[in-house]
Amino acid sequence: MTRIVCRQLAPAIGDLEANIRMTVAAIAESVEAGAQLVILPELVTTGYMFSSTEEARSVAITREHSVFQQWAEAVRSVDGVAVGGFVELGVDGLIYNSAVVVDGSGVLGVYRKVHLWDNEKRIFAPGSVEPPVVDTVLGKLGILICFDLEFPEFPRSLALRGAELIVAPTNWPRESVPAGERVPEVTVAMAAAYSNRVGIACCDRAGSERGQEWNEASCIIDEHGWIVARVDPNGIVTADLDMTLSHDKTMSTLVDVFGDRRPELYGALTAPHE
Amino acid sequence: MTRIVCRQLAPAIGDLEANIRMTVAAIAESVEAGAQLVILPELVTTGYMFSSTEEARSVAITREHSVFQQWAEAVRSVDGVAVGGFVELGVDGLIYNSAVVVDGSGVLGVYRKVHLWDNEKRIFAPGSVEPPVVDTVLGKLGILICFDLEFPEFPRSLALRGAELIVAPTNWPRESVPAGERVPEVTVAMAAAYSNRVGIACCDRAGSERGQEWNEASCIIDEHGWIVARVDPNGIVTADLDMTLSHDKTMSTLVDVFGDRRPELYGALTAPHE
Repeated sequence: MTRIVCRQLAPAIGDLEANIRMTVAAIAESVEAGAQLVILPELVTTGYMFSSTEEARSVAITREHSVFQQWAEAVRSVDGVAVGGFVELGVDGLIYNSAVVVDGSGVLGVYRKVHLWDNEKRIFAPGSVEPPVVDTVLGKLGILICFDLEFPEFPRSLALRGAELIVAPTNWPRESVPAGERVPEVTVAMAAAYSNRVGIACCDRAGSERGQEWNEASCIIDEHGWIVARVDPNGIVTADLDMTLSHDKTMSTLVDVFGDRRPELYGALTAPHE
Repeated sequence: MTRIVCRQLAPAIGDLEANIRMTVAAIAESVEAGAQLVILPELVTTGYMFSSTEEARSVAITREHSVFQQWAEAVRSVDGVAVGGFVELGVDGLIYNSAVVVDGSGVLGVYRKVHLWDNEKRIFAPGSVEPPVVDTVLGKLGILICFDLEFPEFPRSLALRGAELIVAPTNWPRESVPAGERVPEVTVAMAAAYSNRVGIACCDRAGSERGQEWNEASCIIDEHGWIVARVDPNGIVTADLDMTLSHDKTMSTLVDVFGDRRPELYGALTAPHE
């Protein structure tokens, strides 16, 4: 069993130092409370509502930044792992909407968001590498960011490549939904978990920033596609998942959702755009 | 606008003649009540719980069978279309879990279920062709059957190839779900509709057969992923959908869920099984 905690934090736009302090405190507090895997929102070190690339660049950091050493220190005592989003300054000089995976030894992997949502396209360069499956002491974590989840190819790809849990830092913009319905992002995540027989932990953000609010719909979904933990009034989601259950892709003795795939009939998905 | 009607019928196992009469009557009645597209369940001409291939073979029919002419006659007066499932006897001598699309002129297309569920593998040969997008007077209908929906590759493929509505005859085996939850098949269909910006009409079956019951969860989902019609006490689902709305894959001026795809990064989905 792995104790997974999502912290639905509310970063302050552009205040790198304050946000870093907040993230380190949240990770330390979560570890203190028993967490082994701590997940933070997309762009948690910076906030989201940038007015320009220049503004985002002013708070961009490299993957060598000391914040990740602080995260490493915060999880080291329990051999834990932390995942969260940041504005990455690449060695190519471009800035990316990235997520980092850290354990007690430091940075294990960085993913640059491929599917940029809306105005992010004016701010960030898109990633050009498929999302990684990062081998950690807790298990193999498949990483994607927010809008990536809505492309079913990405959770599928992560699961096919051995992810034992999909970790999704998000910033889901607040939207209205029909009475009695959940936000579509959660429905999409549940379907991805169900179809791939893999758990998904979504860490949304909180707060209000330049007129924007978020769904605050953080949740942890098990490998059957059911929500096993929702966010509490303190913005914390806690669940214990046995990630190895994701190895079982069967639904009966005759059904194996991976073995039953017919990749030779899926060519439309990899055809170039017309 | 197209008036779509799903008829959640309860066929009698193995009674081809009675089931044919029931389907013709249901289509005629639906057309009389204003339907343009009438959708029937998977294997509606035969029932589902076959004990052997031989039993299924005894009620297998070719695509030239007169039932489809009767369906054609039933929709001809309104220039309508009917879709439903049957046990197909192929010219290869094999039997398939198939769905047919019929308009007033006769059979427009047949699809053989690719992803066979559970015991179906002991009864049917799997299809070996990707699901078709059938050009009808009402619009382009993407056809798949039941378990196919749970492979996100298939609704994606249909939408990418121009489907304006996905039509899914189903036989969803009854299952228990956590309190307040819908059955996972519907969650999966909603997510597919949302991610592909295309409506999905699911026609489940009713009744009890050799100890098996079904979810009876027929529904019509719009191109935003919301359920716009559920099954009524008579087993009928009715919705008016403008299928041309599926042409719009944008979610804002900067978001196009098809244009934003990165097929060069989806190679894991078409890799052969290891």
